[in-house]
Amino acid sequence: MSQINLAVDIMGGDFGPKTVIKAVSEASKLHPNVNFRLFGDKKKALVEIAKTDLLKNFEIIHTSEYIKSDDEPVNALRKLKKSSLRLAVNDVEEKKSHGLVSAGNTGALMAISKFVLKTINGISRPAIAGIMPTLKGEIVILDLGANIDCTDDNLVQFALMGEVFSKSLLGTKTPSIGILNVGSEEIKGNAVVKQTFEELDKLSSHINFHGFIEGNDINKGIVDVVVTDGFSGNIALKTAEGVAELIVHFLQCYFKSSLLAKLGYILSKPALNRFKARIDPRKYNGAVLLGLNGIVVKSHGGADSFGFSNAISAAISLIENNYNSEIKKKLDFLSNI
Amino acid sequence: MSQINLAVDIMGGDFGPKTVIKAVSEASKLHPNVNFRLFGDKKKALVEIAKTDLLKNFEIIHTSEYIKSDDEPVNALRKLKKSSLRLAVNDVEEKKSHGLVSAGNTGALMAISKFVLKTINGISRPAIAGIMPTLKGEIVILDLGANIDCTDDNLVQFALMGEVFSKSLLGTKTPSIGILNVGSEEIKGNAVVKQTFEELDKLSSHINFHGFIEGNDINKGIVDVVVTDGFSGNIALKTAEGVAELIVHFLQCYFKSSLLAKLGYILSKPALNRFKARIDPRKYNGAVLLGLNGIVVKSHGGADSFGFSNAISAAISLIENNYNSEIKKKLDFLSNI
Repeated sequence: MSQINLAVDIMGGDFGPKTVIKAVSEASKLHPNVNFRLFGDKKKALVEIAKTDLLKNFEIIHTSEYIKSDDEPVNALRKLKKSSLRLAVNDVEEKKSHGLVSAGNTGALMAISKFVLKTINGISRPAIAGIMPTLKGEIVILDLGANIDCTDDNLVQFALMGEVFSKSLLGTKTPSIGILNVGSEEIKGNAVVKQTFEELDKLSSHINFHGFIEGNDINKGIVDVVVTDGFSGNIALKTAEGVAELIVHFLQCYFKSSLLAKLGYILSKPALNRFKARIDPRKYNGAVLLGLNGIVVKSHGGADSFGFSNAISAAISLIENNYNSEIKKKLDFLSNI
Repeated sequence: MSQINLAVDIMGGDFGPKTVIKAVSEASKLHPNVNFRLFGDKKKALVEIAKTDLLKNFEIIHTSEYIKSDDEPVNALRKLKKSSLRLAVNDVEEKKSHGLVSAGNTGALMAISKFVLKTINGISRPAIAGIMPTLKGEIVILDLGANIDCTDDNLVQFALMGEVFSKSLLGTKTPSIGILNVGSEEIKGNAVVKQTFEELDKLSSHINFHGFIEGNDINKGIVDVVVTDGFSGNIALKTAEGVAELIVHFLQCYFKSSLLAKLGYILSKPALNRFKARIDPRKYNGAVLLGLNGIVVKSHGGADSFGFSNAISAAISLIENNYNSEIKKKLDFLSNI
């Protein structure tokens, strides 16, 4: 793909254009083949662009309307039709952009994307997918909160979308798929996960189906794709974030607890900085709304420019690797067997 | 309470009598007022007791039958009526022991305890409760896997059991209660958590009800009691374990990554040992089956003697603080308002 157009909602997130433009500037150096279509307040955008290190390859599509983080998704969908987020989604629907990135209101982004872009044929409900570090590399987990109550059909679709996502974004050859459950034995779990197990098992000549996994298997990297409903997935992801914060906090406290420990910290600092970089949540920023006719990436609202630029890179990688045509091919193939 | 009788299933867990007897010996030093009633193979027990440092205060109730970790709970309940686990539970029912500890088959322990001891009046289903470290101290989380599908009534009962548990085991004065959800706003979540919110809100002049919390709030210590169904609770707990293991693994790798880092590690070692002790999962060993007529504590199957003795201490603490009469009082009080 020679040139990519990427729509960016510059008004979303806790810090708005200040952070988003800085992130776009950082990302543009990594991706010179991308033209950024920036949606939001032109004046504010130009002020921030002036501060950057020669941002080229961009257009500004001005609008003064934007969606606030506490706007009701339904209201945002019905009333804020000139908001930066809505115009960015429209841009993808009109094929002017290949995808979009926003740090705005998640519910509104989901509602508007679903309404404007529609789901891919064969996908009933979009899912939010994310990346987590493990002992063996990075893995995909979905759904992270878009679908609180799921059927087995939803989970089977999540598995297929996750599999193609792992290939497109992480380059995994034949991603293994696991269903998150409370035990790894087949008799464990609720009716939905048991039924999902049976259906994925039937597809096992076409996918690399592992079976059930437990919470502590996620970060062992036992499978490449963790499939779960949005309730459990959201809780797993956020619990993981909380535990990581707690441990790093404890570690900092103990390094400050004695003079020797402080000296040890100073000596180990370069290694500890690499450790911090390894578990840096900003590296994993960018939750992807899968199953829509277009690439939609949600950056964390509190992300800084490094985090936001990682979300941009995720969107570009999915576009370059033709995520949407690959998932359509997969669904077509499976519907014909 | 002057003398406590505690039943111990010495045949459960991955290591059997070897580890359990060592744990009993360690615990007996901390709790000289406890008489241990040991259920299992007498010959094996005596071999291990001979190795200990003067274990007194014990009786052995011999049985050669025991439940294996892969025995079906229903079969264990129906057929293994002379197993060490079953006899230990019977001992509590017959008031010969105040409670019991086992590292055996969780499903069998739950099924047998429920069948023999029955649930307390006002509690429909027992829950498994555990302790987690947070930024602010220790908190209680339940259910951890006993009840995959829960109603709002179940969750309300878990909240009350968790509240009294926090008082009895951790000494919290007025424990705050949170419902685990995918967002802290009242509009978020599934029908069950929303209904539970309403019902706990109605009780808020009698309990310290905080509202919804998210996964990353668990380890911030935002509430003292985290209420959730067994599916999400199990996933949260095990994901937390997995993340902690991953981070400690990364940390070890980076400390080995250069000579300076190794030297830094050596200097910081005493502080890092205190850090390790702080997050040592063995300290939090001992999941408690709440809501039964008797104190039942499940040790992790893979626990060593330090872990198992912590499970023993948890049981003793709940007995000494009259957990069961306190929860009965609470339920009586609330049923009369």
